[in-house]
Amino acid sequence: MSLIILGSVAFDALETPFGKTDKIVGGAASYAALAASYLYDDVKIISVVGEDFGQGNLEKFTDKHIDISGIQIKAGEKSFFWSGKYHNDMNTRDTLVTELNVLGDFDPIIPSSYQMAEYILLGNLSPQVQLTALERLTRRPKLVVMDTMNFWMNIALDDLKKVLRQVDVLTINDEEARQLSGQYSLVKAAELILNMGPKYLIIKKGEHGALLFGENSIFAAPALPLAEVFDPTGAGDTFAGGFIGYLANKGFINFESMKAAVIYGSALASFCVEKFGTERIESLSAQEIHERVQTFSTLTSFII
Amino acid sequence: MSLIILGSVAFDALETPFGKTDKIVGGAASYAALAASYLYDDVKIISVVGEDFGQGNLEKFTDKHIDISGIQIKAGEKSFFWSGKYHNDMNTRDTLVTELNVLGDFDPIIPSSYQMAEYILLGNLSPQVQLTALERLTRRPKLVVMDTMNFWMNIALDDLKKVLRQVDVLTINDEEARQLSGQYSLVKAAELILNMGPKYLIIKKGEHGALLFGENSIFAAPALPLAEVFDPTGAGDTFAGGFIGYLANKGFINFESMKAAVIYGSALASFCVEKFGTERIESLSAQEIHERVQTFSTLTSFII
Repeated sequence: MSLIILGSVAFDALETPFGKTDKIVGGAASYAALAASYLYDDVKIISVVGEDFGQGNLEKFTDKHIDISGIQIKAGEKSFFWSGKYHNDMNTRDTLVTELNVLGDFDPIIPSSYQMAEYILLGNLSPQVQLTALERLTRRPKLVVMDTMNFWMNIALDDLKKVLRQVDVLTINDEEARQLSGQYSLVKAAELILNMGPKYLIIKKGEHGALLFGENSIFAAPALPLAEVFDPTGAGDTFAGGFIGYLANKGFINFESMKAAVIYGSALASFCVEKFGTERIESLSAQEIHERVQTFSTLTSFII
Repeated sequence: MSLIILGSVAFDALETPFGKTDKIVGGAASYAALAASYLYDDVKIISVVGEDFGQGNLEKFTDKHIDISGIQIKAGEKSFFWSGKYHNDMNTRDTLVTELNVLGDFDPIIPSSYQMAEYILLGNLSPQVQLTALERLTRRPKLVVMDTMNFWMNIALDDLKKVLRQVDVLTINDEEARQLSGQYSLVKAAELILNMGPKYLIIKKGEHGALLFGENSIFAAPALPLAEVFDPTGAGDTFAGGFIGYLANKGFINFESMKAAVIYGSALASFCVEKFGTERIESLSAQEIHERVQTFSTLTSFII
């Protein structure tokens, strides 16, 4: 009944109006796996790092009982590194450095202990790698969630569409939904994208929350209104990890359980942005998460 | 127990990607009063029109049992006229023509039959006119709601702040909240604006819904996801009219009733954008409104 998280495990160096960091742990799989680990107890990562990543950093995952036997460690090579600087409004950022390093020729190897997984998050990575990982599973998981970004739409759209045909849920942001569909209206965009393969679509709108489409229904979740966003890095990955972690825990997949999963994903993402990198989502308590989810209930409930 | 709507009653000429109109009925009070009339049965307008407005157009209000004895009709003069063209994304527009006409020296006269009103919407107009109308009421209504826009922040900020000190609820959009407060974060903006006088603040975010702040609480309402926005003109005024109309009907004012009022305002605004101008909100049924409000419940409800 494992939940596999495929994605980058990497180093980031971040600069926001609140300060800057040296190289810290980043990567889509890092955020997603940490988030999922609070909701599900059998989380396994597939990724690759260089020798520079270090045992101490890997322990961030094993401390949370995350299985890292699918993280390849490449001797003499360096981990993926991204450096970015956020503008004052926190909604836009400049990439300062991108060093692919070990990610350049990443071949996702699936340990045999991962083979019976029932849930997989194809985190943001090249569509070709996402597809390869999926094809190497001898049994299709009962839920396949895919996250991606505009970068892959620009350079690997055909591959991306191939993956899309095999997934149950796609998570992208509003601009990406518009790019992928060619439609400005998110309702029209969703209709087109759902015809590309996924049964469900989540459109992430940052501070404006998220929309879930599927089963001819729509669910709108707000984001938690925050006085300050300290560092938005990884919020989307954290959302995806919380989303699939909740569903793995529930064990049944329908529009109702996905609505709750969107709220859990949103709640975990709201923690993520409170500190730099993965810092905040390394040290959550069950009580904090419970209270944050209750806050979402309070924020949205009304009586007519 | 009247509800007074102060604002413009005017002509608009609109152009959207879906077509264009000749002069049709527009103005903040027109939209707000029509919306409120579905929820409350004692709605009274304070406004001014020119001789050109015509009896037929006034009957749009009297047909809905809206009291128009506070609409001054200026012989030999022309009604306020605005013409605008929306861009393809419907989020931005160019003003083509603004003719103040009778609005240039509007002196809001309160008929004696309006004097015991318990609810007033100070619709989008010059802050000086809003203040004059409020001061001419011999008894302060139990609820004063103010709508305004960036235009008045640019040219009459001091007057606007004077009105703010006397209102219970302010409704503005996100950009206006940022301009008025000097804060990018809407949470910080709300805190500052609530210190300027209003007990409650509603920040309208268009397709992203609305946030209600007050009593140390926040409520987030989504907008209805729409495949097409035919004409966004008047959606904010319709929201305000639906909001105060619901509260007048309920008769009690607290955070809980305001949450429902935000949903009713959002529901009525979602109708408004379906056709040009006031057309759609001239012909709603109670059943349609009921079903639309239910749609908002379905859109936002989840079970954890």
